[in-house]
Amino acid sequence: MSERFDLIVLGAGSGGLSAAQHAARLGARVALFDPDALGGTCVNRGCVPKKAMWFAAQIADMHRIGAEIGFETTSLRLDWARFRTLRDQYIAGIRHRYATRLDMADIRVMAEAARLASNDMVVTAQGTQFSAPHIVIATGARPRRLDMQGFELGMLSDQIFMLDAPPQHIAIVGGGYVAVEFACVMRSLGCQVDLLVRENLLTGFDLELVEALAVQMQSHGIRIVRNTQIKAARGQPGEVTLEATGGVEHGIYDAVLWAVGRVPNSDDLGLEQLGVECDEAGHVLVDAFQNTSVPGIYAVGDVTDRRALTPVAVAAGRALAERLIGGHADAKFDDSVIPSVVFSEPPLGSVGLTEQQARARYGDAVNVHTGRYTPLLWMVAGRSEQNVVKLLSVGEERKVVGIHVLGPGSDELLQGFAVAMQKGLTWQDLKSTIAIHPTAAEELLLLH
Amino acid sequence: MSERFDLIVLGAGSGGLSAAQHAARLGARVALFDPDALGGTCVNRGCVPKKAMWFAAQIADMHRIGAEIGFETTSLRLDWARFRTLRDQYIAGIRHRYATRLDMADIRVMAEAARLASNDMVVTAQGTQFSAPHIVIATGARPRRLDMQGFELGMLSDQIFMLDAPPQHIAIVGGGYVAVEFACVMRSLGCQVDLLVRENLLTGFDLELVEALAVQMQSHGIRIVRNTQIKAARGQPGEVTLEATGGVEHGIYDAVLWAVGRVPNSDDLGLEQLGVECDEAGHVLVDAFQNTSVPGIYAVGDVTDRRALTPVAVAAGRALAERLIGGHADAKFDDSVIPSVVFSEPPLGSVGLTEQQARARYGDAVNVHTGRYTPLLWMVAGRSEQNVVKLLSVGEERKVVGIHVLGPGSDELLQGFAVAMQKGLTWQDLKSTIAIHPTAAEELLLLH
Repeated sequence: MSERFDLIVLGAGSGGLSAAQHAARLGARVALFDPDALGGTCVNRGCVPKKAMWFAAQIADMHRIGAEIGFETTSLRLDWARFRTLRDQYIAGIRHRYATRLDMADIRVMAEAARLASNDMVVTAQGTQFSAPHIVIATGARPRRLDMQGFELGMLSDQIFMLDAPPQHIAIVGGGYVAVEFACVMRSLGCQVDLLVRENLLTGFDLELVEALAVQMQSHGIRIVRNTQIKAARGQPGEVTLEATGGVEHGIYDAVLWAVGRVPNSDDLGLEQLGVECDEAGHVLVDAFQNTSVPGIYAVGDVTDRRALTPVAVAAGRALAERLIGGHADAKFDDSVIPSVVFSEPPLGSVGLTEQQARARYGDAVNVHTGRYTPLLWMVAGRSEQNVVKLLSVGEERKVVGIHVLGPGSDELLQGFAVAMQKGLTWQDLKSTIAIHPTAAEELLLLH
Repeated sequence: MSERFDLIVLGAGSGGLSAAQHAARLGARVALFDPDALGGTCVNRGCVPKKAMWFAAQIADMHRIGAEIGFETTSLRLDWARFRTLRDQYIAGIRHRYATRLDMADIRVMAEAARLASNDMVVTAQGTQFSAPHIVIATGARPRRLDMQGFELGMLSDQIFMLDAPPQHIAIVGGGYVAVEFACVMRSLGCQVDLLVRENLLTGFDLELVEALAVQMQSHGIRIVRNTQIKAARGQPGEVTLEATGGVEHGIYDAVLWAVGRVPNSDDLGLEQLGVECDEAGHVLVDAFQNTSVPGIYAVGDVTDRRALTPVAVAAGRALAERLIGGHADAKFDDSVIPSVVFSEPPLGSVGLTEQQARARYGDAVNVHTGRYTPLLWMVAGRSEQNVVKLLSVGEERKVVGIHVLGPGSDELLQGFAVAMQKGLTWQDLKSTIAIHPTAAEELLLLH
């Protein structure tokens, strides 16, 4: 005998919570399974602790520029243990609020894993069965581990949040946004940083802005080594040497961070037996409605092959609940315009197509508007590093198909422009809007 | 005999420079008169030095919150003289670039005042005459002086930028954005601040956000005294007592800032003789095309009765040049959506109608969506002060008619939403856009 629900959700991260809570709000009886902490990657090992560290890095950077514009002070040293305690208290508070909300919504939360027994039943390790006509897989992803000699001498991003003291000299292996963000944060907080990149930095972002960011990272003292493939680590904890192909060695480092991609948590769920299709990397394949290849089984969030971003998972979970429980048969979220920000120093924001993607799709119909500027505060400090804003438009109407911004404030300024793009922004709309002076955001309105 | 031009511009501030440069670009022969520094109020005594001071204040605030989240450091002290030198160097650089651009555009710049002799002629103090079929008044505004005993014991905003050392205890008299901005900046930089307000704070801004800002200002230690009318100052420089009606006294202060409004520079131009109409306060009255009541005479910027904001002046100057020189008879700028930011701590951004204005105009058809939140960094620091985002929509389509934001990042996040409003933003557009997490900007998308 299995207990029956209207909806079962596997995974209490951003996507799973969104689906469960929205379904409950619509009247569904919901069961939510997760052996780990409520909030998943974003709250516990991702966006939130990362953003907190980015703020700490911002404080250190502001202090540095402060000294340049006339502030008299001593150097700044972060007490990592104290900062970690405060950050973890904040995160515990978020988890507590989630637990309260789930309880108030009468969602049955089970702090254990479950696997699919059929397309309408899951079973726990103890063999308890729960059934529902709809089962949502929202088990997320985890940092990739490499089958490499000495891999255990390095950390994953999950572990870097647990450091109680800063490394002196860290190697960060990878070129994606996780690698870039940690490289900038650790550098701002005073660490010596080597960023060891297999091929390109920030693949998928606009090349011109990535290069402008790389120039700034290097001017901040980050050593970026591209086209280097690490094949082994050796030494002992706190004294690690990295061996690259071609006989090149890097180090000695007292810390190594492997930021070499993420792996969907799709194993151990019983997907294969049920015929739920995944791609080669293990991502659950879903259509625009979050349907998997098996009726009654759906998936949202980082476990799927869609963009691995919290707001995407949240939107997917909500739309799915609207459809399955709310009775809106055509409910799906619009993923044509997905903004995202790399919390580097300075931050890099991007929405829509890059110049490379726009040219591939529209050829000569693409108009590229690029502006370079040095922020006011930097000018006062005598700095001359340039930031970049870029806008891509197509056709006679000059419809905007991509916006890319590098510089202080890019983290906050992008959202509104993404809303405007969602609404079909054109060049003329930008030109007819009154600017806010002096801001970084107005640079997009001042483009030629 | 007068030298003939296509366009004469009186005033080389934001509006005048915009009109002159755009007209020259369109082929006009332009003469530009200003006895003072190129760049006018914005560059020399307004937006730019103010924003530089705001950044210094931000650095001090970030340092303070840094100490709360685990940074070990000593206190921060600004060397005002050094900061002023650096800031003035930056501003001198802007002026230098303006001069170069004007020179390259073959604009005749005359570093003297001129007054209107007729509707196609101006004359300098030396009696030299210059004529043109189009004359643009762009002479800006200046801080208001009061005819009050002891007024000379206080400063105007122009003078506060020249301080080489911080006051210990400053009284700021006024309740507009200049008063509020300086109150916050001076407080963040360590001064004791009394803000003495005749009636209301930030009239014209949304009341709920103004009150939330006032709460934060007070929690930062700013003493706000409302409903107090100062009628005299006495003492000596550096030791000033302010007398309010009702026998109440404030002080002793070592500095007083009068931020009691601004006065258009419309006197001494010969306007009255020519019949150019002004309002009671002296603002030149203009229509939507910047026409004054006299053919051939136009006005842009703070000297007019339109919103006193740099980007408004710039848009007006550009549209006017388009019309007079470019031959676009219907060129005018759209002022239906004007965003603006008060650079307080935290900043306050506003575009469109306030709740009060929306209710007055649309009555019960107004939907008010309000969100309160404590920013991530503040939560980590254990602070609980709340910021506010508010959105006003009307009708079945829920068209957005006002957006108001208080909190860190409000300065940068507003612009894109203003672009979206210019395009006819609706509630549904907001709800169908993917958020950027975690940011302040996404709070507008998370409203209910």
